[in-house]
Amino acid sequence: MAQPVVTTRILRRLLKSGAHLRAEKVLERIHPADLGPMLSDLTPGEIRIVIDLLFKHRRAATMLRELPPELLPEIIEAISNERMAELLTRLEMDDLLELVDAIPEERREPVTKLLPQSRRDELRHAELYPPRSAGRAMTTNFSALDEKMTSQEAIDSLRASQIDSSEETLYLYVVDELQRLTGIVPIRRLVMAQPNTLVGELAISEMLSTPPDADQEEVAQLVARYDLLAIPVTDVDGTMLGVITVDDVIDVITEEATQDIYNLAGLSEEDRVFTSARVSIKKRLPWMLLNLCTAFTAGAVIGIFEGTIEQMVGLAIFLPVVAGVGGNGGIQTLTVITRAIALGEIEFSSGLRAVGKEMWVGLVVGMTAGLISGGMAFLLHGNIYMGVVLLLAMMVTMVTASLFGAAVPLILKAMGLDPALGSGILVTFAADALGFFSFLGFATLLLDRLV
Amino acid sequence: MAQPVVTTRILRRLLKSGAHLRAEKVLERIHPADLGPMLSDLTPGEIRIVIDLLFKHRRAATMLRELPPELLPEIIEAISNERMAELLTRLEMDDLLELVDAIPEERREPVTKLLPQSRRDELRHAELYPPRSAGRAMTTNFSALDEKMTSQEAIDSLRASQIDSSEETLYLYVVDELQRLTGIVPIRRLVMAQPNTLVGELAISEMLSTPPDADQEEVAQLVARYDLLAIPVTDVDGTMLGVITVDDVIDVITEEATQDIYNLAGLSEEDRVFTSARVSIKKRLPWMLLNLCTAFTAGAVIGIFEGTIEQMVGLAIFLPVVAGVGGNGGIQTLTVITRAIALGEIEFSSGLRAVGKEMWVGLVVGMTAGLISGGMAFLLHGNIYMGVVLLLAMMVTMVTASLFGAAVPLILKAMGLDPALGSGILVTFAADALGFFSFLGFATLLLDRLV
Repeated sequence: MAQPVVTTRILRRLLKSGAHLRAEKVLERIHPADLGPMLSDLTPGEIRIVIDLLFKHRRAATMLRELPPELLPEIIEAISNERMAELLTRLEMDDLLELVDAIPEERREPVTKLLPQSRRDELRHAELYPPRSAGRAMTTNFSALDEKMTSQEAIDSLRASQIDSSEETLYLYVVDELQRLTGIVPIRRLVMAQPNTLVGELAISEMLSTPPDADQEEVAQLVARYDLLAIPVTDVDGTMLGVITVDDVIDVITEEATQDIYNLAGLSEEDRVFTSARVSIKKRLPWMLLNLCTAFTAGAVIGIFEGTIEQMVGLAIFLPVVAGVGGNGGIQTLTVITRAIALGEIEFSSGLRAVGKEMWVGLVVGMTAGLISGGMAFLLHGNIYMGVVLLLAMMVTMVTASLFGAAVPLILKAMGLDPALGSGILVTFAADALGFFSFLGFATLLLDRLV
Repeated sequence: MAQPVVTTRILRRLLKSGAHLRAEKVLERIHPADLGPMLSDLTPGEIRIVIDLLFKHRRAATMLRELPPELLPEIIEAISNERMAELLTRLEMDDLLELVDAIPEERREPVTKLLPQSRRDELRHAELYPPRSAGRAMTTNFSALDEKMTSQEAIDSLRASQIDSSEETLYLYVVDELQRLTGIVPIRRLVMAQPNTLVGELAISEMLSTPPDADQEEVAQLVARYDLLAIPVTDVDGTMLGVITVDDVIDVITEEATQDIYNLAGLSEEDRVFTSARVSIKKRLPWMLLNLCTAFTAGAVIGIFEGTIEQMVGLAIFLPVVAGVGGNGGIQTLTVITRAIALGEIEFSSGLRAVGKEMWVGLVVGMTAGLISGGMAFLLHGNIYMGVVLLLAMMVTMVTASLFGAAVPLILKAMGLDPALGSGILVTFAADALGFFSFLGFATLLLDRLV
């Protein structure tokens, strides 16, 4: 295994001193997946040299495929249109699509024009599938067999094709004369079969497949659930279109998990740890503005009760207690529900049951928090009504925050939207506004007994 | 594909009416992975019958393996010790370990006593590996080849062993006479090879492997990064111990993502959408207590400035604005950093760079938020100093919240703790306390000019 930190240091020194031949040697021994993180430490000029060297060894395409998305813009800038087209030609369709998306719009047309006609047609066709769909994530590079072949003939055809040896062949796909998928032969079965067995006899005919417009997250759930290594993509009449392999599924699962975590915090996916500060700021400002609106609204709720606070300033101490506990409870519920949605553990019908459970949990936790903080308020102020106000406010806030935390993602999901998107800010806002309103409201009602 | 909801309904009806033979037929057609969610809708009595029926068909073990962890306690309760031992014998070691962990402590000893001696020894040995380690996640069921075999002999030995046909064989492992791993043969290469080629010649000798005490998350990162389908587990002298396959890696990735999301919200992993309300409440109460402490402390900060608020009640409106925007910013930073740590994108050294970037982003976003809210405060109060107080407080709070959001997970990680655990509450607390302190502090200093 390469030691990335040490290797980066060596590589930089070689590039600086112009020892390109030796740099070439070092690069040769680095796995494409390790190159990405290393490039982020180099200057644009150094990156250009590295790409030249990789290009010489026909390794630049593989490297591009493995790059973390946030590094792409910088690297793409260092590659000319002609070279870019040549690299794209060497990639499989799913990787090609991703790269084309990363090319700045004004360069996209000139670059794709340089692709061979057949490749351009394939690309146009693939771009018709919706974003994040199975059709875009599949590779069209798979081994199809005729059901009337013998296993020896199948092995011979495999030997002859030698498709892309970098991708493991795990399953062979049996198709009829109309290219419709009729069965799957795990390669293990082919190894063990007698040479004259018909491929049709070896095939498993009960298998899962997915349409090309299926959401990639759902496909990933299928693969994960049934422990598959690959899933075929077929169109309505069963024609074999491509295959989604488990390594792509892992990428989808990781990506979607990032997206879920990010959405809860109101972050854009492009806002990664080493994204430039400029981009991060640009992405976070709109959320900050939204947050400012909700915070001012919550503040306005306090404003309604200015008269009450004027009569009893001590109330202000409890404002963050009610809002904080309520907000935390709401976020917990929100997290449980959005995670369950992401893992396909919940549907709208069972969702209602989940909402009920969460509200019940919120009530009990809120009551406990209310009793404790109410007790403390009683001890601090020596006034039992202060405790009652806190208890009531805490219960109302927690139950409502739980309702929001559970219902908001389910409703967003039912509307076909992302269940986590912006729900964190909404739930926190609900807890704040309702916490302030109920606490100061009850306090206003009982003000005579408080002061 | 089964239609889970409809099938559950049919199954319940058949079980209720005592039509066990027909229920058996329905069960036969359900994939083990689909059984888990269905069982959660049945009564304990019905579950017992289903397990009896599955047991008859030797499918109960597979079903247990596929169950979501939160359903296990209930199901295990419905299975006698003798039957449990029989089921455990049929499982692979990684699944067996997971199940044994789920058996209540008082039953663990009686159940494992009923296992065959060899199985018991294996279990004792596996239990020596740390929790969440590669040694516990690996299967010991793999195909080892002698390097002096020909490919034909390898195929014959594979045919003869027919190990567990439910697991796809993807790689064959070449070992020397001391059982030390010397190479890997992808099964595709075996198919294509001439019958008399030596296995040693087919093997790839540059390969990744992992020690048994490696953290399962790191192993999953390796597999994901290099697009592997399986990774061998070897001990210090290179002896082949087992294999971790990609389907287990997917489970690890999903589990760890859930854990990250949950930790940020202060949730226990066992607290899932359909966990009983009783368990959820028990798990959430300690966090609520911690939250109550931090919230009261933040409240106490307001208490310090009671005199200031008394002189200008209008200040209370701005408390949620400063704390809310600061808290949100801190959580955003925290999310970016914990995700980067989870994906192995960041080390302590590059972490310092990340802290710097986040503080810069926090400063710019905080300044913008401060200018906007300061402007609004000026418009509301017609007092320029009100705006200045808000601007200063917002900047101080955002920079510090960003510092906390970035540094806390990195420090936790450096201390060998989980970077996300409890950091959400800590960061929110820091933003609250600091937001209140800086806003009310600046307001106190400029109080003459405010009122």
